[in-house]
Amino acid sequence: MYKIGFDIGGTNIAAGLINDELEMIQHISVPFPMGADGEQVALLLKQIVEKLLAAEGVCSGELECIGIAVPGSIDHGGDVVINAYNLGFHDVPLRVQVQKLFNNIPVLLANDANAAALAELHKGAFRGCNTAVLLTIGTGVGGGLILSGRMFNGGNNGGVELGHMTLDYGGELCSCNQRGCIETLCSATALARSGRRAAQGGNKALLMWAGSMENVDARAVIECAKAGDAECEKLFLAYVDALASALASIVNLLDPEVIALGGGVSLAGDFLYEPLDRLVRQKSFFEYHGSIVPASMGNDAGIFGAAMLLENQGKK
Amino acid sequence: MYKIGFDIGGTNIAAGLINDELEMIQHISVPFPMGADGEQVALLLKQIVEKLLAAEGVCSGELECIGIAVPGSIDHGGDVVINAYNLGFHDVPLRVQVQKLFNNIPVLLANDANAAALAELHKGAFRGCNTAVLLTIGTGVGGGLILSGRMFNGGNNGGVELGHMTLDYGGELCSCNQRGCIETLCSATALARSGRRAAQGGNKALLMWAGSMENVDARAVIECAKAGDAECEKLFLAYVDALASALASIVNLLDPEVIALGGGVSLAGDFLYEPLDRLVRQKSFFEYHGSIVPASMGNDAGIFGAAMLLENQGKK
Repeated sequence: MYKIGFDIGGTNIAAGLINDELEMIQHISVPFPMGADGEQVALLLKQIVEKLLAAEGVCSGELECIGIAVPGSIDHGGDVVINAYNLGFHDVPLRVQVQKLFNNIPVLLANDANAAALAELHKGAFRGCNTAVLLTIGTGVGGGLILSGRMFNGGNNGGVELGHMTLDYGGELCSCNQRGCIETLCSATALARSGRRAAQGGNKALLMWAGSMENVDARAVIECAKAGDAECEKLFLAYVDALASALASIVNLLDPEVIALGGGVSLAGDFLYEPLDRLVRQKSFFEYHGSIVPASMGNDAGIFGAAMLLENQGKK
Repeated sequence: MYKIGFDIGGTNIAAGLINDELEMIQHISVPFPMGADGEQVALLLKQIVEKLLAAEGVCSGELECIGIAVPGSIDHGGDVVINAYNLGFHDVPLRVQVQKLFNNIPVLLANDANAAALAELHKGAFRGCNTAVLLTIGTGVGGGLILSGRMFNGGNNGGVELGHMTLDYGGELCSCNQRGCIETLCSATALARSGRRAAQGGNKALLMWAGSMENVDARAVIECAKAGDAECEKLFLAYVDALASALASIVNLLDPEVIALGGGVSLAGDFLYEPLDRLVRQKSFFEYHGSIVPASMGNDAGIFGAAMLLENQGKK
């Protein structure tokens, strides 16, 4: 049997045909048709499904399920994309619209960060785990949870919003309109912001690396810190300290077997993981026996996670 | 069949004989023999078991299990009390010591806050829940988690330390030597401290209610706030706001069906729950569909939770 996973993003719709060995044997990526409504996107997904099956010579009877990961919030029933700002989707019953086009093939819908955690469970950093946490560090901070060996979407199915746990009570205003969320201190944006302040304050290394003030981003700070710029090292270690407090908070609550980091910052290697690991263990209330690693599914996380949604549901 | 639960505290050892209807049909409380070692406490527990059985005319063959709740950390195997400061216990293999005295009757050991959450699951505020959080507000802040309908003790069995999640990054020093833990802002001690500051600053209402500066505690602040003292109202609302941020953090991660509060502060009624409920919903990233209620098991939580440890283990 085969599974199809869709990862719908604001730029592209990526899809993969997955076999029983969890190999992606066909892959298609098309631009997201900005401005399209749910019905139109559903029709596009149907075309992609037909192409994927035809390319492999698989008949629709051999297709076990279709999963869809979207960058947004899903309603409690798992039918409706409540808000996916990058897609321009608000209250779009996407699962129902896609399901209508497929007889007898279950269609499932999930948040993309949750799907990414599920992909890590089946094929990546969380294999064999019962309790694991994925933290995706980008413009914001997102993530997903594995609890009892399953993808967890909140006790009331309301979602998981790791990035909006409070880390700095009364601190900086977050995009969500609350103050001091993990996102305000631990996103790549936060590190870039402190870099830009340093560049404005006259840090030459950052300006040289980035070329211009506007190009100073998280990577610029990390690379200049690696190259030995003392101010950038200080900024990076302050960033790592805040991230370590965020992770230690999660450790004190859930004591995960594995914490995986995704996003650009997570690629910084030992330069990140050595101090981060040390600080998380130092800040944890009890001796932490889990591990902190980079996420391993990369760009395919959404596709694989979406493809595994039916199996995940079966584990209830 | 019958179960026996022990709740060992620094003041008393309380024990109960529980029938299949989850009624406590016999109860014994004796002073904790301060300075006694594990072997001596184990012998005392054996005497109490014999008394409980004799009082009800139950033979030991009808005893299904013995559970022990202690105010401290337990090792990964569930055998050893690593640290229970109130008992003077450090690396005491209490479960093994008690098990030696009972043939064929399983003996289990747990942290008392975890046991309290388990009691709420079987007989209290968490009945029917898959995902629930107990927060006990006292000198410190403790708590327990129910995940997938079971007591959760951390993914690596390291424990659950809700009170030591970071709420105020870089904030006040906590008893655990980290800064800004939930405990530093949300314990009864924290509210008492702000009350004492107000009393020292000349607040007459607090001094009159408490009788003396040293007697100004959390309850004094709450009662004076209820009676309309403007400064105490302000202190109480600041406290509730911090507590709401702590709960909203937990909501954003776990979206629990029920959050229950234990400890003295939790008895403040609508005066607490009305603003707290409103603020948690306001601070949560998504619409929160769970409820926030007082814990319902009171002083018997430890006994009932300890008695249910075998059943909880069976649900693995």
